Amino acid sequence: MEIVKGRPSTMNDSYQLNVHKLLEHAARVHGDTEVISDRRLQGGLRHRFTYRQVYERVNRIANAFERELNVAPGDIVGVLDWNDHRYYESYFSLPSIGAVTLELNIRLHPTELGYIIKHTKPKGLLVDDSLLQLAEVLSKEHDFSFILVMSDKPVEEIKTNLRVLGYEELLRSNSPNRPSLTVDERSAATAAFTSGTTGLPKGVFYSHRSIILHAMAVAIGNSLTPSDVGLQIVPMFHANAWGTPFASTMMGMKMIYPGRYTPDTLVEHIVTHKVTVTAGVPTILLEIVRRLQQMGVKTPGLRITSGGSEPPSALAKAFMELGGRVIQGYGATETSPLVSMALPKAELKELSDIERFEKMKQGLPIFGAEVKVVDPITNQELPWDGKSFGEIWLRGPWIAKEYYNDPRSSERFTPDGWWRSGDVGVVDPLGYIRLVDRLKDVIKSGGEWISSIDLENFLMAHPYVREASVVGVPHPKWGERPLAVVSLKPEYQSKDKEEVKKELREHLLKRFAKWQLPDDFIFVDEIPKTSVGKFRKEEIRSKYKDIYMGNG
Amino acid sequence: MEIVKGRPSTMNDSYQLNVHKLLEHAARVHGDTEVISDRRLQGGLRHRFTYRQVYERVNRIANAFERELNVAPGDIVGVLDWNDHRYYESYFSLPSIGAVTLELNIRLHPTELGYIIKHTKPKGLLVDDSLLQLAEVLSKEHDFSFILVMSDKPVEEIKTNLRVLGYEELLRSNSPNRPSLTVDERSAATAAFTSGTTGLPKGVFYSHRSIILHAMAVAIGNSLTPSDVGLQIVPMFHANAWGTPFASTMMGMKMIYPGRYTPDTLVEHIVTHKVTVTAGVPTILLEIVRRLQQMGVKTPGLRITSGGSEPPSALAKAFMELGGRVIQGYGATETSPLVSMALPKAELKELSDIERFEKMKQGLPIFGAEVKVVDPITNQELPWDGKSFGEIWLRGPWIAKEYYNDPRSSERFTPDGWWRSGDVGVVDPLGYIRLVDRLKDVIKSGGEWISSIDLENFLMAHPYVREASVVGVPHPKWGERPLAVVSLKPEYQSKDKEEVKKELREHLLKRFAKWQLPDDFIFVDEIPKTSVGKFRKEEIRSKYKDIYMGNG
Repeated sequence: MEIVKGRPSTMNDSYQLNVHKLLEHAARVHGDTEVISDRRLQGGLRHRFTYRQVYERVNRIANAFERELNVAPGDIVGVLDWNDHRYYESYFSLPSIGAVTLELNIRLHPTELGYIIKHTKPKGLLVDDSLLQLAEVLSKEHDFSFILVMSDKPVEEIKTNLRVLGYEELLRSNSPNRPSLTVDERSAATAAFTSGTTGLPKGVFYSHRSIILHAMAVAIGNSLTPSDVGLQIVPMFHANAWGTPFASTMMGMKMIYPGRYTPDTLVEHIVTHKVTVTAGVPTILLEIVRRLQQMGVKTPGLRITSGGSEPPSALAKAFMELGGRVIQGYGATETSPLVSMALPKAELKELSDIERFEKMKQGLPIFGAEVKVVDPITNQELPWDGKSFGEIWLRGPWIAKEYYNDPRSSERFTPDGWWRSGDVGVVDPLGYIRLVDRLKDVIKSGGEWISSIDLENFLMAHPYVREASVVGVPHPKWGERPLAVVSLKPEYQSKDKEEVKKELREHLLKRFAKWQLPDDFIFVDEIPKTSVGKFRKEEIRSKYKDIYMGNG
Repeated sequence: MEIVKGRPSTMNDSYQLNVHKLLEHAARVHGDTEVISDRRLQGGLRHRFTYRQVYERVNRIANAFERELNVAPGDIVGVLDWNDHRYYESYFSLPSIGAVTLELNIRLHPTELGYIIKHTKPKGLLVDDSLLQLAEVLSKEHDFSFILVMSDKPVEEIKTNLRVLGYEELLRSNSPNRPSLTVDERSAATAAFTSGTTGLPKGVFYSHRSIILHAMAVAIGNSLTPSDVGLQIVPMFHANAWGTPFASTMMGMKMIYPGRYTPDTLVEHIVTHKVTVTAGVPTILLEIVRRLQQMGVKTPGLRITSGGSEPPSALAKAFMELGGRVIQGYGATETSPLVSMALPKAELKELSDIERFEKMKQGLPIFGAEVKVVDPITNQELPWDGKSFGEIWLRGPWIAKEYYNDPRSSERFTPDGWWRSGDVGVVDPLGYIRLVDRLKDVIKSGGEWISSIDLENFLMAHPYVREASVVGVPHPKWGERPLAVVSLKPEYQSKDKEEVKKELREHLLKRFAKWQLPDDFIFVDEIPKTSVGKFRKEEIRSKYKDIYMGNG
């Protein structure tokens, strides 16, 4: 892409956007504001720091990295930890010396983590004392030049067969003074890997620049202010924890890092600290709201960003009744992740709160995230008419342009900087995005698309059905046709299968056109699922790939 | 300054932050949202556009600039206009082709405007039809290759002896389609000149990058949302209109551009359009609130940023009673301008609204604007203790690093990127900035500083006093000592002057220490003032420079 050069400005355009400037700012302007860390469920303590103290700690450990552990600009250091203050510190300390904090997802299978380690060759590892077993497994895959154990106990008391150094001991023995280093804003500061359902994880390396711009977007999208109180629910090994640690530091907000948590400890923090902003996936939010309801506690003004999958309207309604608000967002590891937020337009003023929630779906693209809907066959852009659905493509200063050292990059990125999200969606004329399926799961029948997710959700609303998965399988005439795989509730399993099929077809016809209905239903005891509970659609498709081939 | 390079990221770090991307975003995501322009007091019409329409108009006129008027990247084009939609369009059209929109302050003396024109040599001029006389004066100073007249009337009906082209005619005859050009984000997009009380104006050229980052900061500082409605009171020839045209476009807000206005038309817009956000100097805000009070109209939720000088508490109180809120900000042409905003910290929760307003003064530094208080003699940084006052120094990605082709740059900028603001202030331990004086007006007496402004304000609160100015004049023992120049109200002019002096001294002692009091009082009929009503302190100092020299 050609870049036109105009006249130089007189502004300080060589000022580098640096992640550690966020903490420097918080320490100067919000020095007494608290950063709370709760390590009780990790076998540790509760901590109360101020931004001034955290900044001092970060400077000390940065000096240790640089001077004692020989971490150089560009080096990668992995982190295995829960959402506590030491993870938060690593978001700043390593970037401040030009190194990269690699967020290791402790929920991944050890073989996947092993792949990530071998692929990135981290110089060192930071590990929480509650996760030493995992570190022992990983250290068989790769020779770390150092392993720092992060603990509230002295390092001598740590039981492990690894050769470890104590994070706190190193921190204490190093000076809190260091010159503020200027790092090229295009250097990587942190890194995370995708946890896709198929294939090996793919690496995304965030730059100082992308993190700062994204933090500003998060602050804008959530209307953050210095008097907000935040709770970090999203795991810090997921895409920079959705950017909140950076955005809240930028604003000088009081923050609660709940460490390893349960729904109960999260609720405790929300109530004790009068939390005003948080974010999470619907599953955990449902657990939280249920407990708040049981306790009869109101949370007036609480704003919750919900992402990852579509939250049920009941969840939004439940929080509304407590005085709070659920705001849907959309994004991915590749997009830092913020792409869109369900912010109301004036046009929606007349709607009730719940109608507005339903109308706004996954939200409006936020400035900086360019969005288009593309026909995946022709690569032509489709209109925002609320009807044309296609693959969502994304581009912008906090959106990836490639994967880390990965030949699969070319499948997902265009030469002009667009990332093909793999999500199928539609944008309405007001600009609100609605996701309907994953591209690989959408069923392409005779030039028309059928959403497998819509069919599944509606099938599962039928009283007979325990679980249902719908996949597209090859068809000689239509290309693909839907097939439903259904597990019935025990009490209906003895029913005549032809009767049940008829019943389910009639049920689906209430909502879908005839041509959208599955051509057949297969009844199984159990639908194959992944470790995180998603249907193994690849496996289902492969098993039944020939079922319609006689139907020409 | 050395810049450390780390490992390259995988993000789209070469994506350029471009001003015209703001309007492209608004047109796509907020295409139906209105941009209203009121040219009635310019002898024109009221206009209602949508962002989609404005984007089309901007593309058409950009094509005209590029293809018909041969405006090339780096070219400068001046604008003489009021706050209407065509000024707004020029904020995008010229930058979108890599050119620079030069904001010409129509309130400056023609000799100062003449200097700016000769200093910047604009290729062309855009002029509102109500300002043709001024264009005629300026065109004697410089040979513009084109002059476009911006009018609601056909160009044939325009009476002028200049050779002009019609903006609307050119716009209509050019295509709305153009490729989105990528401009180096460090290129200048707009330019404005300072209107200091001493010396010739100094030029600041804003970059695409600085404008985008600043717009994000404005959106954060004001918690802007897409359902806000903005009114552009700050003149668009003042430092990018304080950035609101860019920030509101970023958010897709409905905006009212009131054209040439009076307090009455502003109030009309506030009431008719239910404006939720605006900004201005205290003088105009006082006029507005007085009218709203007279009309008995409430403005619930209206947020008003006040800048330029300190607003009286009565102003803040009056808006509070109407349901609104005045938020002080601090900045300058050199700082884009946003440096700080009076955002409340949790520590101020217990205060009443008005106490909080008074406590927050000029506000908290916002992320991106580095602030320090510096002893102007030793250049040592001073603590934020609420007591140490010194010159405010500023640095950041939207703060200038030099003036445009100006040898005076070295007096005001340090080699490491700090701008010496010339403002004397103090920062309290919570981070709130309080400005006390201009550095050149502060009185340096025996190592201690005395604020001339504080003395003046308190003197003018005395019933005898019509006007009072306090300056520092040379003193053989103390370096400088304060001298008060006072104009009494007619009814007190016949009083015995020694009695009056005694009375004023006693009045001042209620608030100031004895050593801070003026050594003498001079009574005059009229204090010399500039065209905008500021005291000519240089002239006063020079006139009385020897008055204390016998007091060794």
